[in-house]
Amino acid sequence: MSHPESVLVVGTGLIGTSVALALRGHGVTVYLSDRDAGAVRLARELGAGTEWTEGRTAEIAVIAVPPHLVADRLAALQRAGAARFYTDVASVKALPLRLAAALGCDLTTYVAGHPLAGRERSGPAAARADLFLGRPWALCPTEETSPDAVEALLGLIKLCGGEAVTVDAAEHDRAVAVVSHAPHVAASAVAARLAEAPATALGLAGQGVRDVTRIAAGDPDLWTGILSGNALPVADVLEAVAADLAAAAAALRASADPDALDDVTALLRRGVTGTGRIPGKHGGPARAYATVQVIIGDRPGELARLFQVAQAAGVNIEDVRLEHAPGLPLGAADLLVQPEAVPALAEALRAHGWQLP
Amino acid sequence: MSHPESVLVVGTGLIGTSVALALRGHGVTVYLSDRDAGAVRLARELGAGTEWTEGRTAEIAVIAVPPHLVADRLAALQRAGAARFYTDVASVKALPLRLAAALGCDLTTYVAGHPLAGRERSGPAAARADLFLGRPWALCPTEETSPDAVEALLGLIKLCGGEAVTVDAAEHDRAVAVVSHAPHVAASAVAARLAEAPATALGLAGQGVRDVTRIAAGDPDLWTGILSGNALPVADVLEAVAADLAAAAAALRASADPDALDDVTALLRRGVTGTGRIPGKHGGPARAYATVQVIIGDRPGELARLFQVAQAAGVNIEDVRLEHAPGLPLGAADLLVQPEAVPALAEALRAHGWQLP
Repeated sequence: MSHPESVLVVGTGLIGTSVALALRGHGVTVYLSDRDAGAVRLARELGAGTEWTEGRTAEIAVIAVPPHLVADRLAALQRAGAARFYTDVASVKALPLRLAAALGCDLTTYVAGHPLAGRERSGPAAARADLFLGRPWALCPTEETSPDAVEALLGLIKLCGGEAVTVDAAEHDRAVAVVSHAPHVAASAVAARLAEAPATALGLAGQGVRDVTRIAAGDPDLWTGILSGNALPVADVLEAVAADLAAAAAALRASADPDALDDVTALLRRGVTGTGRIPGKHGGPARAYATVQVIIGDRPGELARLFQVAQAAGVNIEDVRLEHAPGLPLGAADLLVQPEAVPALAEALRAHGWQLP
Repeated sequence: MSHPESVLVVGTGLIGTSVALALRGHGVTVYLSDRDAGAVRLARELGAGTEWTEGRTAEIAVIAVPPHLVADRLAALQRAGAARFYTDVASVKALPLRLAAALGCDLTTYVAGHPLAGRERSGPAAARADLFLGRPWALCPTEETSPDAVEALLGLIKLCGGEAVTVDAAEHDRAVAVVSHAPHVAASAVAARLAEAPATALGLAGQGVRDVTRIAAGDPDLWTGILSGNALPVADVLEAVAADLAAAAAALRASADPDALDDVTALLRRGVTGTGRIPGKHGGPARAYATVQVIIGDRPGELARLFQVAQAAGVNIEDVRLEHAPGLPLGAADLLVQPEAVPALAEALRAHGWQLP
């Protein structure tokens, strides 16, 4: 697998600019293009590359535009001979392939792609070079795709830190309907109830509803485009979810009959099974770290002292999660360490005056 | 507001034991009771208090049992004269009040309560002294409740670090249906689709679906009890969510007509409005920290060195978030600092060889 020397990014939004930043970090020559001159300028100022000028030929062109525009852009770029190979980053894959075929694009040099990464924010200013680190990146070669085009995309994915997953386009679309598109709509429907709820209700919101609805903050127009590009697979999943929720509501209304509640419990059990099938963070096996919890004050340098004490005790802190509470002088830190290091760390922290719950 | 000197915790599961640990941290005498002798022993070993023996009278009894058992336990405790005042922590409030009245309990000494805190795990071993820090804690006094009982509960909530929210019981139940109970079922229904999805689909799961489904890992039997105790308000919300999802599915099936998609966009917009109404973390205003991102290696002690360098540069790191990627030597750390400290920190990190994206 070789690394691309030059890449053209077409569309300098969140994903396109993040790809550009990741590649620039590895010394790749990156050209930028966008119909919005301001977006290109901002991406350039962020260090994402230089502006594209007609006549150049990049090794790969990354088409980072909404799903229904990918094929148009691919056809135009191929006519201009802008690159040796082409890919896109749209979150649906059957649609751009179908439109590209209909437009008579050269399908040997095009590999449909989809990095499974994103943020609630959009635009080049939200871009991050590390956006793809350890995240799945789907690629959907067809029978027509040349092996060289696939190799080129694999090299690009590797440079961006993504984990390549080769999958059929139709299978990809059914998969993302289940793990991304329908969950987005479900989160929106839960969040929509909050739009109408009295202020008292919002005052009782805990971490659970925050997590469930976080992605519902995404751009509605962008998401309508994504959903309409994968309409039937998403509709299938949403209908199944709606039916389960309607059945749960009916069971609760009939809950004077205890047997009615069995349906609710069964749905909750299926949910537990489903969450258990999600691979560990970043798709890797969950690391078996142990957690040492410590109460920390809001004093300057306290975290630094804590890390020093851990280091002096020969303990490497693998991860740390802080919880601050406003108006309170105290917070809790979860320190993740190798299980065998727990006693040494706890002893060292206590010896230096920290309170362990 | 005075602090209770002695508290009886009835039911040493996650919430009861967490209350006990929080109070013990402030020197309160805590007595523990549970039908399951093993649960009491474990809570005791965790330092949550000493075992309750008949004949003692605590200042407050905290009844931490499932919603439908609260009134029974309250009646028995009042007969035994176990405490001056009584409260519970069940996540529904109209049901225990109604049952308590039916059982002829003394409603002057009882204040229904509900700390809005929890974890996906249950049992005393999952308890945390800081579980309630900065979290809302609802209390639902009625016309019969004595002011002294309310004062006593407010003192207990304060010791636990919670934020007291006084609310009518019926209003509480409608509120938690929207911000907790229905979101739980919706998360379960999304997660239930994952239970049936092919393995490929799970391989494409990103952070979004993880967040949406996190709470669906909760105990199905415990949650069936909660939902059945708040059946009608939850059914109302679930029906509305199911109707929105069914309508979105129908709109997507009809998406050859672009007007049909307007309904989808409208739902997504209502979702954005809803997420915008959720108060900042812990109910406080979001702190305006700036983020400095740095690429870190997996070398032992690297985080400790990073904190030392920050400290030497006079910069206090307020929060840190790490992203590790399996199989890759690199990860990214987001360091949250006061905005004015960003240049000094960035310069210090670069000077010590760290790479900033």
